[in-house]
Amino acid sequence: MRELELINDLSRLLAREDARVIRWVGDDAAVVRAAGAYSVTSVDTMVEGVHFRRSQLSWAEIGHRALAAALSDLAAMGLDRGEAYLALGLPEGVEHGECAELIGSAQALAARTGCTIAGGDITRSPTLVVSVTVTGHTDDPGSVVTRDGARPGDLVGVTGTLGGSAAGLAVLDGRVRLADELARSLRARYSRPEPRLAVGRALAKAGATAMIDLSDGLATDAGHLGLASGARLELELGRLPTPGGLAEACRQLSVVPGELAATGGEDYELCTCAPLSARSVVEAAVTQADPALRITWIGRVIQGEPGVSFSDATSRLAGFEHAV
Amino acid sequence: MRELELINDLSRLLAREDARVIRWVGDDAAVVRAAGAYSVTSVDTMVEGVHFRRSQLSWAEIGHRALAAALSDLAAMGLDRGEAYLALGLPEGVEHGECAELIGSAQALAARTGCTIAGGDITRSPTLVVSVTVTGHTDDPGSVVTRDGARPGDLVGVTGTLGGSAAGLAVLDGRVRLADELARSLRARYSRPEPRLAVGRALAKAGATAMIDLSDGLATDAGHLGLASGARLELELGRLPTPGGLAEACRQLSVVPGELAATGGEDYELCTCAPLSARSVVEAAVTQADPALRITWIGRVIQGEPGVSFSDATSRLAGFEHAV
Repeated sequence: MRELELINDLSRLLAREDARVIRWVGDDAAVVRAAGAYSVTSVDTMVEGVHFRRSQLSWAEIGHRALAAALSDLAAMGLDRGEAYLALGLPEGVEHGECAELIGSAQALAARTGCTIAGGDITRSPTLVVSVTVTGHTDDPGSVVTRDGARPGDLVGVTGTLGGSAAGLAVLDGRVRLADELARSLRARYSRPEPRLAVGRALAKAGATAMIDLSDGLATDAGHLGLASGARLELELGRLPTPGGLAEACRQLSVVPGELAATGGEDYELCTCAPLSARSVVEAAVTQADPALRITWIGRVIQGEPGVSFSDATSRLAGFEHAV
Repeated sequence: MRELELINDLSRLLAREDARVIRWVGDDAAVVRAAGAYSVTSVDTMVEGVHFRRSQLSWAEIGHRALAAALSDLAAMGLDRGEAYLALGLPEGVEHGECAELIGSAQALAARTGCTIAGGDITRSPTLVVSVTVTGHTDDPGSVVTRDGARPGDLVGVTGTLGGSAAGLAVLDGRVRLADELARSLRARYSRPEPRLAVGRALAKAGATAMIDLSDGLATDAGHLGLASGARLELELGRLPTPGGLAEACRQLSVVPGELAATGGEDYELCTCAPLSARSVVEAAVTQADPALRITWIGRVIQGEPGVSFSDATSRLAGFEHAV
């Protein structure tokens, strides 16, 4: 498999549907007409043996997951589309069809979310590496939701459910055994996370004051948000929304569900803050953007040492102050 | 060394000098006011054991080289500044100071070339990986020089000298022994390539019809250009400009200098095509942009099977048709 074959493959697999993309794969750089005066860019890298194992994910899942993680950063800024650039480091022995599966799956996610894969880079690497750069556009930088806008009195909410990805990995690892359907559903939370682009955009419009996506786990990510905002997020473990099967998975893992939900990571849901007055507008906006999703209020922003704390007395995390 | 320490380091090491960068390191994504209606983006990845060995380069050189290679793609489009995003995959055992050296050196090159490192990603990796995304801006997409504009009759030129990087690597490998000063100078061609940003911009303004940077070697890269343009680049090996010490290095390696110059790769010079009528304007533009640099005409564009051919009878590459 030569690089050039793969680059030709890229041109074939990637649909250049967006008229804004003037030059793409096959030149030194891609040329894109910006859809706004400001660009919003993030890079996210997934490394074999660190972020995934090839034995546990299909090539399609590796491609989906890498792009989903990168797009999730755009979602957390309130941006809902843009371009992506895939940099692949491929070990010897990776077959043409496997790489095409990876790229094809990323392309499918891109097409479904209105994102254009406009270029990339393919190189040899001893370790499989998928690094994705995503760029969104806006004319109003004030509409971008950053991490530092949370104010005392704000509510703290999360989209969807938490802990599913960690439980799905436990299923893959053989540390948890569940009925087929539950196992499949949790496994999918790990292998095919969904970037919350439409919901992120809706939250931004509905008045979110600060937002972050949950890649490292709520305890860490909410800590980042609190630190950036100079405020404390006081969260209740017992309120964290969890998916079906999580309670049983946690029983087998001997952890409290709230703990797995707070520390599991890689759920790629959004944690957002909003003024109390915006509560019902925010709730409606989320459900309108994605009827299958709701927001759950899990705590509030208070004055105090910046960071996050959990107030639930039923957990070992009680009184835990995550200063990050 | 925790990731967060390093991210804090990034904020310290990277000077946010550019007022266009509104948000950067420390949020989910960087927010940048575009300096033009069109963005030009490229990704370039360097992997330990594939593109370099840690035993042969300092941390500063690894950082410089990765950013230089990425910026070289912008140079080849005729863009001369922009933003860069560094994605680092760091093995266990890499020390804080080593990583700071890598980032600091990239930052020094960025500052010197008017580029802003606006964000990035740091993750663990079994192999050291430095992936760099660069984005330039322009209001006139017609001013961007792509690979497909070469026309029969055009002259083909290269900036600087070729083969120095390959010879420098041979010095590092111990395959070549040279006097100290020559060895140092060739080694620097390998370890600290210079992206030809100002010269690339000048070539674009002076009427270059097509351009590519020489990362894989002239034989391959000129082949890409010919193929994209649907024309043949007929080049003369004997005309390829070579740096001091190359003849002696080639004697020790038992290769013809022109061959090493054509196939060595990683010189990061520019190969450009221009109409005969623009010859003197192009020559003057290069020297004005960089008094230390000149352009050497190495052949012409002809009708024929798209690709590149070398017409020099003194070489094993004589008559070689590099169809890519």
